Amino acid sequence: MKLQIALDTINTKKAVDLVQQILPYIDIVEIGTPMIIREGMAPVRELKKRWPELCVLADTKIVDGGELESLDAVEAGADIITVLALSDRQTVSDVVRVAHNHGRKVMADLISVENIEAKALEMAELDVDYICVHTGVDAQKSGRTPLGDLDKLLTVLPPQRTAVAGGINMKVLNSYTARKPGIVIAGSALCNAPDPVLAAKEMKEAMV
Amino acid sequence: MKLQIALDTINTKKAVDLVQQILPYIDIVEIGTPMIIREGMAPVRELKKRWPELCVLADTKIVDGGELESLDAVEAGADIITVLALSDRQTVSDVVRVAHNHGRKVMADLISVENIEAKALEMAELDVDYICVHTGVDAQKSGRTPLGDLDKLLTVLPPQRTAVAGGINMKVLNSYTARKPGIVIAGSALCNAPDPVLAAKEMKEAMV
Repeated sequence: MKLQIALDTINTKKAVDLVQQILPYIDIVEIGTPMIIREGMAPVRELKKRWPELCVLADTKIVDGGELESLDAVEAGADIITVLALSDRQTVSDVVRVAHNHGRKVMADLISVENIEAKALEMAELDVDYICVHTGVDAQKSGRTPLGDLDKLLTVLPPQRTAVAGGINMKVLNSYTARKPGIVIAGSALCNAPDPVLAAKEMKEAMV
Repeated sequence: MKLQIALDTINTKKAVDLVQQILPYIDIVEIGTPMIIREGMAPVRELKKRWPELCVLADTKIVDGGELESLDAVEAGADIITVLALSDRQTVSDVVRVAHNHGRKVMADLISVENIEAKALEMAELDVDYICVHTGVDAQKSGRTPLGDLDKLLTVLPPQRTAVAGGINMKVLNSYTARKPGIVIAGSALCNAPDPVLAAKEMKEAMV
């Protein structure tokens, strides 16, 4: 199981400072969609310049223009690019083609998808590398969690191809790690912790 | 009917040069999603700094984090912010609340939506200002156009709340303008024309 930290509410400079400290505990650093909306690919470029070996995911949530948008993320150095599973099949396959041609990987985000199993199988068939069940921060406001969706995902995919995101913190971590998804994504539980470095260390240690 | 030009494949500097020339013929300048992925809100900020009265749409295609992401677009000066109609209802209503609190407007993008009429009514009920049928550039590769979707949209909404995007050029413009949508969006037909300024002038004149 890999631990992915989602950076959403900070700027590039603060991201660099934080990543510097949490490097030993984190497998994948996600430049979240809000950071991309504010700063574009600058934070991806900066992290890859400083740590070429670090796995950086650009949460581009591509839904159209698959070739153009994934090329921009590839050129910035992103190792993993996200596409919305709800996109047109052409978009998903274009993102996969561009990413794989450059030795990068693709994660499909199942946000707002109703039939998890069917859509996950479609993404797998399109050669998407990781398929992520995701309860968005807005959907979490009504108490929803991604645990049930993860169970559905695991009925159709091998665990190493799965990822899960949506309000995961230390209190609920065990429910997720017991299912052994490939990637566990945590955002505010780490970034908004009193001590983000300690929080990342504790979460990573609890996942072993 | 308003004419919106979608800027996707250029950078901020070229966008400034182009906007300078096409200002008389354009009602709304869209900073397209690919530009946002590359440069974040910088092009929105730059256009609003130079032309405070210009209506700038940020094609953020928000699908989660409605409050956070729309605030970033508002702070950059965007007059219209886009949200995916496929988002959670909470996301759409958060984007609408933030935008309206700051005197801005929201466009919902119906890309990948199957039941156009039902989703459009849901967006209207959530107080979204403009509802856009959109055949993405990737979906266009299989020959699809947004004309049929526009007809569906117009069965449930007043024309001034509708917008249409997806491969619209001078050859097909009449089919769209005959239906009198509120906003006609053109991207490559203008930006990739031999003379984008002349193309914008001709399109605007044909819409009167």
